[in-house]
Amino acid sequence: MKIWQKNIDVDSFVENFTVGNDRAMDLHLAGADVLGSLAHTKMLYSIDLMTSEDLEAVQKELKNIYRDVLDGKFEIEDVVEDVHSQIEMLLTQRVGDAGKKIHSGRSRNDQVLVDLKLYFRSEIQNLVGQTEKLFNQLIELSNTHANVLMPGYTHLQIAMPSSFGLWFGAYAESLVDDLHLLNAAWKVCNKNPLGSAAGYGSSFPLNRTMTTNLLGFEDLNYNVVYAQMGRGKTERVLAQAMSSIAATLAKFAMDVCLFINQNFGFISFPAHLTTGSSIMPHKKNPDVFELIRSRCNKIQALPNEIALMTTNLPVGYHRDLQLLKENLFPAFQSLNDCLEIATFMLQHIDIKNDILNDPKYDYLFSVEVVNNEVLQGIPFREAYKNIGLAIEEGTFNPEKSVNHTHEGSIGNLCNEEIVRLFAESKAAFGFEKVEQALEALLAE
Amino acid sequence: MKIWQKNIDVDSFVENFTVGNDRAMDLHLAGADVLGSLAHTKMLYSIDLMTSEDLEAVQKELKNIYRDVLDGKFEIEDVVEDVHSQIEMLLTQRVGDAGKKIHSGRSRNDQVLVDLKLYFRSEIQNLVGQTEKLFNQLIELSNTHANVLMPGYTHLQIAMPSSFGLWFGAYAESLVDDLHLLNAAWKVCNKNPLGSAAGYGSSFPLNRTMTTNLLGFEDLNYNVVYAQMGRGKTERVLAQAMSSIAATLAKFAMDVCLFINQNFGFISFPAHLTTGSSIMPHKKNPDVFELIRSRCNKIQALPNEIALMTTNLPVGYHRDLQLLKENLFPAFQSLNDCLEIATFMLQHIDIKNDILNDPKYDYLFSVEVVNNEVLQGIPFREAYKNIGLAIEEGTFNPEKSVNHTHEGSIGNLCNEEIVRLFAESKAAFGFEKVEQALEALLAE
Amino acid sequence: MKIWQKNIDVDSFVENFTVGNDRAMDLHLAGADVLGSLAHTKMLYSIDLMTSEDLEAVQKELKNIYRDVLDGKFEIEDVVEDVHSQIEMLLTQRVGDAGKKIHSGRSRNDQVLVDLKLYFRSEIQNLVGQTEKLFNQLIELSNTHANVLMPGYTHLQIAMPSSFGLWFGAYAESLVDDLHLLNAAWKVCNKNPLGSAAGYGSSFPLNRTMTTNLLGFEDLNYNVVYAQMGRGKTERVLAQAMSSIAATLAKFAMDVCLFINQNFGFISFPAHLTTGSSIMPHKKNPDVFELIRSRCNKIQALPNEIALMTTNLPVGYHRDLQLLKENLFPAFQSLNDCLEIATFMLQHIDIKNDILNDPKYDYLFSVEVVNNEVLQGIPFREAYKNIGLAIEEGTFNPEKSVNHTHEGSIGNLCNEEIVRLFAESKAAFGFEKVEQALEALLAE
Amino acid sequence: MKIWQKNIDVDSFVENFTVGNDRAMDLHLAGADVLGSLAHTKMLYSIDLMTSEDLEAVQKELKNIYRDVLDGKFEIEDVVEDVHSQIEMLLTQRVGDAGKKIHSGRSRNDQVLVDLKLYFRSEIQNLVGQTEKLFNQLIELSNTHANVLMPGYTHLQIAMPSSFGLWFGAYAESLVDDLHLLNAAWKVCNKNPLGSAAGYGSSFPLNRTMTTNLLGFEDLNYNVVYAQMGRGKTERVLAQAMSSIAATLAKFAMDVCLFINQNFGFISFPAHLTTGSSIMPHKKNPDVFELIRSRCNKIQALPNEIALMTTNLPVGYHRDLQLLKENLFPAFQSLNDCLEIATFMLQHIDIKNDILNDPKYDYLFSVEVVNNEVLQGIPFREAYKNIGLAIEEGTFNPEKSVNHTHEGSIGNLCNEEIVRLFAESKAAFGFEKVEQALEALLAE
Repeated sequence: MKIWQKNIDVDSFVENFTVGNDRAMDLHLAGADVLGSLAHTKMLYSIDLMTSEDLEAVQKELKNIYRDVLDGKFEIEDVVEDVHSQIEMLLTQRVGDAGKKIHSGRSRNDQVLVDLKLYFRSEIQNLVGQTEKLFNQLIELSNTHANVLMPGYTHLQIAMPSSFGLWFGAYAESLVDDLHLLNAAWKVCNKNPLGSAAGYGSSFPLNRTMTTNLLGFEDLNYNVVYAQMGRGKTERVLAQAMSSIAATLAKFAMDVCLFINQNFGFISFPAHLTTGSSIMPHKKNPDVFELIRSRCNKIQALPNEIALMTTNLPVGYHRDLQLLKENLFPAFQSLNDCLEIATFMLQHIDIKNDILNDPKYDYLFSVEVVNNEVLQGIPFREAYKNIGLAIEEGTFNPEKSVNHTHEGSIGNLCNEEIVRLFAESKAAFGFEKVEQALEALLAE
Repeated sequence: MKIWQKNIDVDSFVENFTVGNDRAMDLHLAGADVLGSLAHTKMLYSIDLMTSEDLEAVQKELKNIYRDVLDGKFEIEDVVEDVHSQIEMLLTQRVGDAGKKIHSGRSRNDQVLVDLKLYFRSEIQNLVGQTEKLFNQLIELSNTHANVLMPGYTHLQIAMPSSFGLWFGAYAESLVDDLHLLNAAWKVCNKNPLGSAAGYGSSFPLNRTMTTNLLGFEDLNYNVVYAQMGRGKTERVLAQAMSSIAATLAKFAMDVCLFINQNFGFISFPAHLTTGSSIMPHKKNPDVFELIRSRCNKIQALPNEIALMTTNLPVGYHRDLQLLKENLFPAFQSLNDCLEIATFMLQHIDIKNDILNDPKYDYLFSVEVVNNEVLQGIPFREAYKNIGLAIEEGTFNPEKSVNHTHEGSIGNLCNEEIVRLFAESKAAFGFEKVEQALEALLAE
Repeated sequence: MKIWQKNIDVDSFVENFTVGNDRAMDLHLAGADVLGSLAHTKMLYSIDLMTSEDLEAVQKELKNIYRDVLDGKFEIEDVVEDVHSQIEMLLTQRVGDAGKKIHSGRSRNDQVLVDLKLYFRSEIQNLVGQTEKLFNQLIELSNTHANVLMPGYTHLQIAMPSSFGLWFGAYAESLVDDLHLLNAAWKVCNKNPLGSAAGYGSSFPLNRTMTTNLLGFEDLNYNVVYAQMGRGKTERVLAQAMSSIAATLAKFAMDVCLFINQNFGFISFPAHLTTGSSIMPHKKNPDVFELIRSRCNKIQALPNEIALMTTNLPVGYHRDLQLLKENLFPAFQSLNDCLEIATFMLQHIDIKNDILNDPKYDYLFSVEVVNNEVLQGIPFREAYKNIGLAIEEGTFNPEKSVNHTHEGSIGNLCNEEIVRLFAESKAAFGFEKVEQALEALLAE
Repeated sequence: MKIWQKNIDVDSFVENFTVGNDRAMDLHLAGADVLGSLAHTKMLYSIDLMTSEDLEAVQKELKNIYRDVLDGKFEIEDVVEDVHSQIEMLLTQRVGDAGKKIHSGRSRNDQVLVDLKLYFRSEIQNLVGQTEKLFNQLIELSNTHANVLMPGYTHLQIAMPSSFGLWFGAYAESLVDDLHLLNAAWKVCNKNPLGSAAGYGSSFPLNRTMTTNLLGFEDLNYNVVYAQMGRGKTERVLAQAMSSIAATLAKFAMDVCLFINQNFGFISFPAHLTTGSSIMPHKKNPDVFELIRSRCNKIQALPNEIALMTTNLPVGYHRDLQLLKENLFPAFQSLNDCLEIATFMLQHIDIKNDILNDPKYDYLFSVEVVNNEVLQGIPFREAYKNIGLAIEEGTFNPEKSVNHTHEGSIGNLCNEEIVRLFAESKAAFGFEKVEQALEALLAE
């Protein structure tokens, strides 16, 4: 069954090609599609395009379908083209002609648009939640190991003393900045395209402000041509935001793979979380982190893929946009999985405590020692010369302790400030307002 | 002259390779470098690492250099490696040993970091200003031509009536959403990395909060390892934001190239703004818009380039990051040029007023006519059948007018709401606070 | 069952994450894995690491499994990690301990490598075959419509006379050049990595030249470290080659979408191959070509995705490489589908014959007319002035015919030369040699 | 001066925007432009569109200009739009009206096309030459250090014994496969587009076969529409080929940065080729290799940039294509620089000889020892159990030697075969034929 099908039969070869994986992808949109129809029908009733009886029947059945979606019982049948047709068919089977009226003043185009925005909002909220768990785990590790020193590298050369407190905390703070991009994506998503019809509006006296409020959107996509233009753009912006979290995770995974390597040997994981071999007992392959890195680098490629698929398409809908679902939708699951398993793995990380005892790290402290002499009143050039000489003569023997006090340094991590920043970034989304609106829409 | 150069001479072959185009790129950072040093030295004085005499001398000369930068008189000499060395050299020539002290408690790494963030802030402000001009021009055109109809396409097939009001307004509203990303980039830029030294902090009792306030930053990059990690990440986020504006512009340019094509013929520009040939009088090559499209698509490729250059680099500074300047810095100029010339061209655009009189556009109105009958009480199926029949029999003769009233439609563009959204997005940056801080820092 | 699993149980959470979609992807490799084992065991026997009885038993069962693969009866069980484990398990069930011996002198790493190369070879051959069908269809259309003129555009402005013969033929010739890249990918694939073990060779006296000949490879990947390095690189090169065909197809699809648009109206397809609406009878949405364009642009993004997933990984195997299968393997099917459906659609394309009769195309001929006067002896400047004047005065009335005779022009398409070039490009692969080797390997 | 400029003056604002960096970029094309005109004018004479006097005068002056180009004396004046106009202007100044005739039967479009192809051919030849130098250096190092063992890693975990012979040789063999792609690019470049005019051919009786032979092209781009389509496509294919060499170099640079790190410490470079600090004497920043890595990763981004700038442009020339020069042309220099400096650095590399003496590498040999026992007749399971037990009890004490004999292994590097493969790949270009043709064309 295809909505646009009238009398002419399209070759099944062509049909298979055009439908593609759409049914599988569309399952993700089922809940959102119901929400959109709940709001749309209330609005239709308000402008006298639906009777109160029809409204009541339709609302009741839509809520039943919504429960099926939540319970994992909703399916798209093989003969049905997409999620929208499936829901319309179910409705019509259950409430008769009233089911067909939900399409008044709406086109497949704005229906998909609002579904996508509702779905994306929900996925963004998931991502923020999962990101917060990893953030908290990193902060906890940073606090716990605040005083355990490790070498700091520049140019991958041993450079200055660092600490596990700094290392874990750095990635926590990186997630704060990643939320800024996710918030921008949220703002782009959180505007209502419903009512834009096929991208050129409708001659029905729709009340788009009403559906905006019912669906908890912050505002409207006003211009109907722009509302349509949001297809592809919203996906790209969201993929960019996801790629920012992914970049943070991939970099962290690279560090883990390096630091678990036996030449570094800074960290380890229990044997059951790595893979190895009984005749190579020191081999602990960090498969999980290699796959986090790889999955996240793949997500980093996503914005460019979307750009290539949408660039130079002139104004108006193009069928090209349908395919954007295929890599984007699974990316939500993939990124959430990466965040979750990284959090899980970090609950089991082991830290080596005495790394800097190894003499190869002595020179890490040369700058410290120079600075300390300067702070004690010795001119910089003289202090520098002293230490240089000591090193040359082999008498340099640093006390391997660090006394950094300024904001964000080893001795003053400011993790509570970083926690504050994360909380502020999270609060900026305003998830509660959305939740309340949807709850009201679904209430009996 | 290279800062890290002590006694060993580096092969000039190697030197040329490593310096690359850095001198040219670094000119962009000169003003920012002075600002950073103005704040850093005030802070050094506050923690007794600089005398008041030295501070006074250094501040005075830095402000002189700043004026030279503004006047286009600042240059990086061929024997000098980069902008930081050049400014330090000038200072030392003019105020003696005091000039050398500005490097206390600071590394080349955090100096570059703060320069980049200050420079990026300034470029973001420029972009917002230039974007606003294009936005205003688009809104003006949308208002002026609110009632001029044009065909609306889906699948590049003639579909529904649209209008120039909608078309211009759509791109205006697109710029609103683009500002959300630019604002995310602003938030990432507007945090102070100064004091992170080589990425592992300093044993000097730096007051990073003080430099944060002096430079008008919203907050600190607290964790010093994260501050360093901002290199590459900030660039990528900024490139993503720029690519969003660029995508809007490129799409608009594609529309222009299509609509100026003689098969469409919806718009034109005066002969002196296109290129052509006297024996092909209808040929008006839209070179400007083709180049806008091409430049903007190039900018769209930038985030991916940065991702490829930074992916899988473990924690800590790598020299790789130096090269990020080369495509990013010129992109600011290029995007500003595109925004400016698009605004300029739009001041001269000619609109065809009677496009829809052509009978090939008759069918545009079929959905309108069906909807109108429905609104007059005729059941949808009957109305649909009536019109279908009329079309089949060749008696379909639509009144070519449109009566759309809902929010964002042809008859109700809501441009004032779109203007409000732009103003809100712009206000979120808080440029004034930054301007005031820098003014105070530069004041005598 | 996992090969490396000894006594330690890996958390099922971790296991699900690490296995991912590997089972589904690995089904593609089943045939190749059997071929590799057929060759490997013959070689083991030749160096006395397998008895003739074991060899006979194993060869027989491997051929049985190969038949199951061809018949679509081969499956990877849920408890089995990958295709290699599945085949090893089946063998052991059927021939006992002999089945376990096939892993001697081989690592999972070189086993996967050779499987990939064999699979890629087979997919390249498929692609060449499918490309040839489209090529032939384009050449046929070019010949059939050699004399039907259409406008030629530059800057998307009406510029010069072109023809359907030129248009179809151009895309045919484009496929010739695409084959050069595919041939480069073939050369990279057609070298034997078997025997490289985990990337560092083996202490067994393997005869790698023997397996090279048995599997029909052109040569060896000699250096075992390089053989391993081929993972990721081979995929990228192959994706680049596929992206070249995809770029040709996407561009052609863009042309089709433009030329089927009613403002152009140069071509059309029967109603059952487009989608439309009964009240908008002129609407023929070219969904198939929009999806060809979109799928092909997605394939164009693939090389970059692979680059991002492999960049900056140091020498040696990394688990990251496993994920390269996920977008690459389905891309073969997708590109083949696009080639096939494009060929199918072109069998039904309708061409408008009298396009240039429309007066808007008159100026197309101005250059022709000038050139013709020049060829008749009139100085260029004078001829140019004459035509310019005629156009200005509205008396320009060209005879709308074209007399181009040079190689590759409207009157002399040289399609037979283009056919020759395609045949030469195809012959360069040498598929027969490979087919003969595999046939011999599979013979009873 | 602009060729297409007739009477209408284009705003200088617009002009600056459209010319952009073209003058700087076009300098690269000067020699190619002269060669194209030398061939084109000979052909014009052959079809009686040029007199022998004019031909002689033009050929003489073109050769003078060519010499100026070679001597670095050729410049494009500020008032001149591009290289083609500059050369035409010089010609006209020196030989009068004959200079203007060189444009007969040629358009700016096919002139640029042939210039690009000639220029690219020359750059490909340069790249092959520079690649060969690096290849030879790698092979030499592989032979010299054939027997020096180093650890081999999988998952970045210590896995198996490797050698410097293998490591250097692997990257040499990688360059062989890279040449296959460069050869594909060569084949795409080495076809003659001259005579395609503006992409739709010419009514002049051009002899395109003659210019093909004069310029040493292997064949024609027959179809004139396809010839034009080569713009953008040729660039993308070439960038893909360059990205393959770049990927090899970037990976090698990553290895170098890792192995020079003090935790590995496998290699080093003399102090004057690294950068460091006198108080951190162990710090040897590998800036050169970090920049090779970064530059090469940037080159890896180039094909995608070109794809984004050309995707979805319909058939025919678009001004967008002009901008492709800006990142592509400098990439030739950059890649050549990277190849050259890598070769230079490798002439000074120091290798650590006794890496594997460190007990942390003992387990590298466990697989060896098991295999050796198997080869001596002990069943695998028993051998495996023996070694596992010895390791568990701490009595495992391997003889740290390796006896690998098969093709491509530590003891049998097959470098002579890899050298043969490189020579075969290089011979496939057929540079001599091109050189001879150009020499003949330039001969007095």
